[in-house]
Amino acid sequence: MTPTVQPAVVGATGYTGAELTRLLLTHPRSRVPLLLHDREDGAPGDFAEVYPQFAPTREPLLPIERFSWDLVREQGVDLLFLCTPHDVSRRLAPLAIERGVRVVDLSGAWRLKDAANRAVYAFEDENPETASLLDASAAYGIPELNAESIAEAHLVANAGCYATSVILALAAWIDGGLLDLEAGVICDAKSGVSGAGKQATARTQFVEVSDNFSAYNVFGHRHAGEIREQLDLDPSQFQFTPHLLPIPRGILSTIYVRAAQGTRARDLDACLREFYAKAPFVRVHGSARLPEIRHSLHTNFCDLGFAVEPDGHRVVLVSCLDNLVKGAAGQAVQNMNVMLGFDQREGLQ
Amino acid sequence: MTPTVQPAVVGATGYTGAELTRLLLTHPRSRVPLLLHDREDGAPGDFAEVYPQFAPTREPLLPIERFSWDLVREQGVDLLFLCTPHDVSRRLAPLAIERGVRVVDLSGAWRLKDAANRAVYAFEDENPETASLLDASAAYGIPELNAESIAEAHLVANAGCYATSVILALAAWIDGGLLDLEAGVICDAKSGVSGAGKQATARTQFVEVSDNFSAYNVFGHRHAGEIREQLDLDPSQFQFTPHLLPIPRGILSTIYVRAAQGTRARDLDACLREFYAKAPFVRVHGSARLPEIRHSLHTNFCDLGFAVEPDGHRVVLVSCLDNLVKGAAGQAVQNMNVMLGFDQREGLQ
Amino acid sequence: MTPTVQPAVVGATGYTGAELTRLLLTHPRSRVPLLLHDREDGAPGDFAEVYPQFAPTREPLLPIERFSWDLVREQGVDLLFLCTPHDVSRRLAPLAIERGVRVVDLSGAWRLKDAANRAVYAFEDENPETASLLDASAAYGIPELNAESIAEAHLVANAGCYATSVILALAAWIDGGLLDLEAGVICDAKSGVSGAGKQATARTQFVEVSDNFSAYNVFGHRHAGEIREQLDLDPSQFQFTPHLLPIPRGILSTIYVRAAQGTRARDLDACLREFYAKAPFVRVHGSARLPEIRHSLHTNFCDLGFAVEPDGHRVVLVSCLDNLVKGAAGQAVQNMNVMLGFDQREGLQ
Amino acid sequence: MTPTVQPAVVGATGYTGAELTRLLLTHPRSRVPLLLHDREDGAPGDFAEVYPQFAPTREPLLPIERFSWDLVREQGVDLLFLCTPHDVSRRLAPLAIERGVRVVDLSGAWRLKDAANRAVYAFEDENPETASLLDASAAYGIPELNAESIAEAHLVANAGCYATSVILALAAWIDGGLLDLEAGVICDAKSGVSGAGKQATARTQFVEVSDNFSAYNVFGHRHAGEIREQLDLDPSQFQFTPHLLPIPRGILSTIYVRAAQGTRARDLDACLREFYAKAPFVRVHGSARLPEIRHSLHTNFCDLGFAVEPDGHRVVLVSCLDNLVKGAAGQAVQNMNVMLGFDQREGLQ
Repeated sequence: MTPTVQPAVVGATGYTGAELTRLLLTHPRSRVPLLLHDREDGAPGDFAEVYPQFAPTREPLLPIERFSWDLVREQGVDLLFLCTPHDVSRRLAPLAIERGVRVVDLSGAWRLKDAANRAVYAFEDENPETASLLDASAAYGIPELNAESIAEAHLVANAGCYATSVILALAAWIDGGLLDLEAGVICDAKSGVSGAGKQATARTQFVEVSDNFSAYNVFGHRHAGEIREQLDLDPSQFQFTPHLLPIPRGILSTIYVRAAQGTRARDLDACLREFYAKAPFVRVHGSARLPEIRHSLHTNFCDLGFAVEPDGHRVVLVSCLDNLVKGAAGQAVQNMNVMLGFDQREGLQ
Repeated sequence: MTPTVQPAVVGATGYTGAELTRLLLTHPRSRVPLLLHDREDGAPGDFAEVYPQFAPTREPLLPIERFSWDLVREQGVDLLFLCTPHDVSRRLAPLAIERGVRVVDLSGAWRLKDAANRAVYAFEDENPETASLLDASAAYGIPELNAESIAEAHLVANAGCYATSVILALAAWIDGGLLDLEAGVICDAKSGVSGAGKQATARTQFVEVSDNFSAYNVFGHRHAGEIREQLDLDPSQFQFTPHLLPIPRGILSTIYVRAAQGTRARDLDACLREFYAKAPFVRVHGSARLPEIRHSLHTNFCDLGFAVEPDGHRVVLVSCLDNLVKGAAGQAVQNMNVMLGFDQREGLQ
Repeated sequence: MTPTVQPAVVGATGYTGAELTRLLLTHPRSRVPLLLHDREDGAPGDFAEVYPQFAPTREPLLPIERFSWDLVREQGVDLLFLCTPHDVSRRLAPLAIERGVRVVDLSGAWRLKDAANRAVYAFEDENPETASLLDASAAYGIPELNAESIAEAHLVANAGCYATSVILALAAWIDGGLLDLEAGVICDAKSGVSGAGKQATARTQFVEVSDNFSAYNVFGHRHAGEIREQLDLDPSQFQFTPHLLPIPRGILSTIYVRAAQGTRARDLDACLREFYAKAPFVRVHGSARLPEIRHSLHTNFCDLGFAVEPDGHRVVLVSCLDNLVKGAAGQAVQNMNVMLGFDQREGLQ
Repeated sequence: MTPTVQPAVVGATGYTGAELTRLLLTHPRSRVPLLLHDREDGAPGDFAEVYPQFAPTREPLLPIERFSWDLVREQGVDLLFLCTPHDVSRRLAPLAIERGVRVVDLSGAWRLKDAANRAVYAFEDENPETASLLDASAAYGIPELNAESIAEAHLVANAGCYATSVILALAAWIDGGLLDLEAGVICDAKSGVSGAGKQATARTQFVEVSDNFSAYNVFGHRHAGEIREQLDLDPSQFQFTPHLLPIPRGILSTIYVRAAQGTRARDLDACLREFYAKAPFVRVHGSARLPEIRHSLHTNFCDLGFAVEPDGHRVVLVSCLDNLVKGAAGQAVQNMNVMLGFDQREGLQ
């Protein structure tokens, strides 16, 4: 197959950027990605020095260079992946699109449509008008739900890791009207440590995390807004509590809902299976089996399973994915595939 | 202080039995415990061979002998701890009490008052009448709530690990009428692996548990009945989902409730603090801080903290404890202290 | 590329068999492998039920069937992988070769040439004469060292996980005469838990392994014989101590040697690089960097690095690999590639 | 028992300082320790805020105050524990002794007698003469070996964690002349992550350490000098390689030695048992069992076991301890006990 895209990755040394680089290096339609960093104090380096696991045996090494628009132009980049903090993404994305370079942004910068929800990020846009237009036109990057808008978009806001796990779990039933949403949706989510990024912090030190488990950002996590927007849920209908698991990667969301009056387990099962019948990266276990984190690790799958109360309407829905793959880099490649008209599965199996 | 109790531990080689033995060995009011096993194929052994971590340097070793009533009588045992499967506990407890020996049972054999709830265990009692009388007279062993009945009881049913974590978390607010119970109580609980016991199983192998996380026994865990009975909750009001954490010990329960109309965060805080004002083993963080599992490990503390929705009534309550200490052996010693009129803290600090 | 081999995997549900199945499923020259088990009590099952992580979304499932020679013949199997206990491998391999089916055996059954070394396995061969012939003709399966004999062999004895790590580390320097072997070689090796296999044992339970580390089989590990035979070392020259790491997979061997008089660090470095110049799966870090376990996980690489005493001759050599890939299934596929004249890298990148 | 010592802990918020504080809080002869920090930017704080695991339920909290000599004098401190970086210890210890306050220093500042060995620390002493006198007079703090000098000392240099593990393992046999030291001593040591201190670093982040294992500081670890000095070994006789284990705490040292001509396993066993016959914190498993890390966790024990080559002289000696207890805070308390004439076991069981 002929490579037909020249991608660049800004922020290639973070966990997400590295996973993305790994995927692009073996993607049959992608040229070797241009690796960039955007830190004033950042020395040029080599990818395999930072991530020896990705070192080839003898092939030329992969340099990480300082970001510049000149470099982007010279290398003929036609897709820019931003694995950058949201303020950097907020700055770079408009400039890229101005230059005709399409963008997949992996930060939270462009995910929220509602200005009130965006307030949690406190963006300081240089050009608020352009930013506002982009806020409106950016596609929310879950290909299972928004393939059409992603295909057309100049800017795709790759969905958050927790958000992907929860939205994919609930979308089918909400779309099918199978839930009693007035009874509320409670999401108790648990994530591995790489979800917090590569920055060395006291909270993510080995001694603090190992043999431990804790809740954080209760009633205040930024992904809650994304989830509510995409599922069209009222704040009073949705509650989200994230926890930190003592594992490097993986997310499991336990979601508590009530089935609508008259809805049976087999309706729920059929609805899920039908909704994702053509989705190559959603594995529906249905009511047969609850997914576990390890089954989705290092894959681009989101695994879904559920249990229904015997003789009742309460439902426990469990969703698992790898936060660095389907929750970030894998989904970014999937979005790229959709944007460029490739098969969604290209480079992801 | 003069030792005044001669305890025996049946099932001293399981995780719970070993933790209990460790505690009794340093308890200032306890003689060296008589260690027993109840398995036909069990060879006599030595405690420090099975648990070298508890080996003294030169003191005489601690034998584990085959259980017999003769041995119990000869050694002057006045308190029998049963760290045995529930069917063994169901058989031994009546015989002990018949012989005038008080019992703290750490299995699930005697915790449930309601015969319908007990059905999940499918007990086959030799003498159903005696069993039924004991079912009624056994004290439920959470000293913070039932000190009086425990002090009098011949048989104390040490509370389940999950159950202790949830009941201690909710008792104060339910007692104070501060919750809207009609809105339902959802408990998303997570436990370390030692909660599953010492038996070698495929599910608890290192390779299966590490880097993993999973839900299990959804809508069907035995501790749910205990919790409902003790908190007087209707099945429709309570939902319990346990999960397996990749850590050796510790439980964190995330509990979703709604405060009653007009109840504010400071009311919830004050209620908790007042309710446990004299409880030496409940640490109320209140709304100041959410507890984490590691803070209660290797202690007999149950730590409680909560967060209230800004401008709302939804409350997330978090409860942590060490499943082998406050969730089992520590609580058993605390129950013993209450039964024998010792200070509750004796041997537990 | 046209698939040109029909492999079968006996013992597909163990950790090694599952990893091998995973690799064969994406190998461009391999047909879908025939999955077999060899246990009288084994029910037929499905691979994705045992390993949901390998479940496709909708493709037909992969059955695991009871082994029979009829099935092997009917399915046109031309390469039989034995992921079986060594007594089973000892029984099946001669029968396969009799039937003209080539074998890669992943057990320890056929690795040792010296009958004295083989004594640790206490084989009871049905046909000692045939067994003895096969012992002599079997190729020892490390393609970096024995590609020629592997290419010709009817039976390839896939090297042990520890053995691969140590042999690849030492082969170049011993071959080049750069070591003072009279000073002795000490190998302090550490392995993740999957090296012990999938059988549920007390020793490999999560609670026993986590937060722990221990040595085992000191002066008595079976891989020591393999290493000595392949490197032509005298028992007095080689010492091997394995340890159990609290991680699911990966091996790191720390090897203590002395450089021969007059040998400098750069000689050691150059020798390693030259020796493995054409080996696609050995990454020589040389004296620049010591490898870490995580860098080789989920890859077929063996990573080598070393440090030399300043102004001295003592050398610490570190070798890392993934025990389930380069230490087992990956190397088995690499052996298959060599046996069938494929590129060594086929299906392993 | 009447409390008879008023200790102060400088650096109480590090892992070592916190463990020490925990031990002093329950030591029957110690008053509540004065907790201090020595950082200009350090705000006064509370111990239980930093370490909620040590929070009492209702007792007054334990403040951490800014270090000053006035405070030390006013509070009548008669023993100062320094859990500070070595440059701070190097500055504070002489000033304390000048003021008549005895010191147990837990850093590496005062452990080395030989100026050449000390060079690795590059101390810049304000008063080199005083420092030099203290270097000479400081007692090396392993009570099993130096009880007499510790009892008299103004300054005790608490032994390093790795050093304690190796010195206790080898001291008996070297003292008894049972080893062929010319054949060399190789120590392959492995430590949990808390040995690296509480500082947040990239290398000790959870994602970097978990599922990983690596060697570091090969031929260059500072504890090697300590070990050689205390055991009177020539650099050519001793080799030390530390590794980082993916566990929070614990050290296991695997030590390779040769028994002297004519020395049998039972001589080695008897020598060890006799040498430590009166040492309450060394558990000699001898040749009966190799110790594992978990057996010494949260205890002040150093566990020793060994295996001898069948029909040979090679010996593998294994030593385990908890780096924060016997390797740091526990040993500091043990040293205090010796300095003040208490029973060595006081507060450590």
